[in-house]
Amino acid sequence: MKTLKVNLDRKTNHSYEIHIGEEILDRMGMILARNGWAGRYIMITDNRIDALHGDRVKSALEKCDLRVDRIAVEHGEASKVIGTVLAVTEKLTALGADRQTALVALGGGVIGDLAGFVASIYMRGIPVIQIPTTLLAQADSSIGGKNGVDTPSGKNLLGTFYQPKGVFIDIAFLRTLPDESFRSGLAEVIKYGAIESPELLDDLETAAAAGALREVSFLERIVTAACRIKKGIVELDERELGLRRILNFGHTVGHAVEAASGYTLSHGESVAIGMVAAATLAERLHYLPADDRRRIVSVIRAAGLPDRIPGNLDLDSIRSRIARDKKKEGEIVHFVLLKKLGTPFVNGGVPAELVKETLEGLRQ
Amino acid sequence: MKTLKVNLDRKTNHSYEIHIGEEILDRMGMILARNGWAGRYIMITDNRIDALHGDRVKSALEKCDLRVDRIAVEHGEASKVIGTVLAVTEKLTALGADRQTALVALGGGVIGDLAGFVASIYMRGIPVIQIPTTLLAQADSSIGGKNGVDTPSGKNLLGTFYQPKGVFIDIAFLRTLPDESFRSGLAEVIKYGAIESPELLDDLETAAAAGALREVSFLERIVTAACRIKKGIVELDERELGLRRILNFGHTVGHAVEAASGYTLSHGESVAIGMVAAATLAERLHYLPADDRRRIVSVIRAAGLPDRIPGNLDLDSIRSRIARDKKKEGEIVHFVLLKKLGTPFVNGGVPAELVKETLEGLRQ
Repeated sequence: MKTLKVNLDRKTNHSYEIHIGEEILDRMGMILARNGWAGRYIMITDNRIDALHGDRVKSALEKCDLRVDRIAVEHGEASKVIGTVLAVTEKLTALGADRQTALVALGGGVIGDLAGFVASIYMRGIPVIQIPTTLLAQADSSIGGKNGVDTPSGKNLLGTFYQPKGVFIDIAFLRTLPDESFRSGLAEVIKYGAIESPELLDDLETAAAAGALREVSFLERIVTAACRIKKGIVELDERELGLRRILNFGHTVGHAVEAASGYTLSHGESVAIGMVAAATLAERLHYLPADDRRRIVSVIRAAGLPDRIPGNLDLDSIRSRIARDKKKEGEIVHFVLLKKLGTPFVNGGVPAELVKETLEGLRQ
Repeated sequence: MKTLKVNLDRKTNHSYEIHIGEEILDRMGMILARNGWAGRYIMITDNRIDALHGDRVKSALEKCDLRVDRIAVEHGEASKVIGTVLAVTEKLTALGADRQTALVALGGGVIGDLAGFVASIYMRGIPVIQIPTTLLAQADSSIGGKNGVDTPSGKNLLGTFYQPKGVFIDIAFLRTLPDESFRSGLAEVIKYGAIESPELLDDLETAAAAGALREVSFLERIVTAACRIKKGIVELDERELGLRRILNFGHTVGHAVEAASGYTLSHGESVAIGMVAAATLAERLHYLPADDRRRIVSVIRAAGLPDRIPGNLDLDSIRSRIARDKKKEGEIVHFVLLKKLGTPFVNGGVPAELVKETLEGLRQ
């Protein structure tokens, strides 16, 4: 038997910049024109965002002599499915998109995931630029290249790690963001506070008390803080082999609650409940001081997010969904817990009985 | 406007080994067991290969205490489509496949592409091991990580570059390979001879004259030579940004002829015709000596492959398909031509009239 080695160990060149500010679309156009990532651009957006911001983004790019086309899908989670991936693919070919075409994801987490995934598999990969328009996407999901879509047999079952060429975060988009979506984004910001930066929680509580959660300077500050934390984690563990798992704080129970509610609870509401569950588990296992757990609960309330499991949800359904969580490996369910605020760790051995008691205790 | 940089420039670890020999399945089992790439393995194969070799491969792995399941799709090109990707995905979830699962692609180019693509997007990427069973897959498509499937709007429209963990080439599989498929593989071997190693053409002609094209020692020699050439090219240009394009020698006209025939011509037959067309173009443009062009034609004939376009094919249809070739960028069609045997180059400016005349001249 002969053995040949294919030597592909080399330096990759996947670095990119996150630009954050208010009304930065014109500067974005200039940056795209200067970098020449593609000969033409196709915006992927949803009908709601398109009506609000589509023309403005398109003309900001056209002012810089960039060719822009546009594909709009239905607004909402129902578009984050493999069927939409195929529909967008058909539209891309109809527009004659080739390897010299870049996608521009204009929208929230659904659009970012959809466009990121399509870009990663269309003709074996074309560039994608992220323009997140929701707080959740600006503070979290537009950074780090993780994407995914649902299939009939699972949430986020198909996806890739695929880094964008650049991320442009215009805080001005948040003006038109509905309250529920805004609160959903705050849940992820609280997550970053809990796992890395308790000062972020101070900032959030102060703003909430002053009724200033929607002020631009505050938003720019928390988005920048969240992006800085996330980028640091992604730099160390791009493909979620270890450290990056701490970003799932609140998500193990959160995903299960979200699914058990039939998606009537938003992602942010579910993650808020999941963070309280994780903090409670951590306290019961004698890791997290009670004060830290209470602190998390109080910030969640200040943000207008739920800290209890709605009484109409079936706890057995939540528990069986936790066991099936796609982050399970073999039979072990990984929980991200805290030793104190800002100090997360992954615990693979939480007793099932304790999970059960904790969920029961959190029921409304 | 603030700018944060996400620093992802780092060393990747994508190297892998190609093992080539006769009856190497037992050694493969030991290598997999030793490397521990996954906690369990799921074989992706087609019904024809499964009937011939499925049990043998499965038991070779089980002898080494590896857990093996199996998914078989229909034999043939019709399985290299996005619909099969989704069907396989459903079966993987039904089998409980998670991130600790690796796929084993057992089959020809269709299975390698299908399993490679599924592995690259299932739960954002799980390991894949390639066990190519056809000459085409052994000498060419199982190496280099390029995969793709068809959608209603295009051939290979969706795909990724995704490297396997290892490639195991057992020459013994070629014993059961039908003649047409065998000749199809020879076309790719001739391609490697034409672009890099004229000695490979000598070897092939000698074996053909001696009626020894199916002898194991000859096959092991040409497969190893082709793998060595391909690995060298892939090492320099994993993502086909430049050099790797020379692997498309014969494929621009080849793909067009294949499609225009309604896929009644095999890939290898089409590439053979495409190589004659490229050589003829190169000669007419005063790059390639006439002797070298005649040499290519004579090896193609010796291998039992066609060197003329069948009279029933529509030349206009072939020409318009060349213009739409997915490798076009903007309006330029890239042809891989030769300066002499072993010296390929990419020419973007072949006059349309010359292409037309060449195709007419090659008509039967």
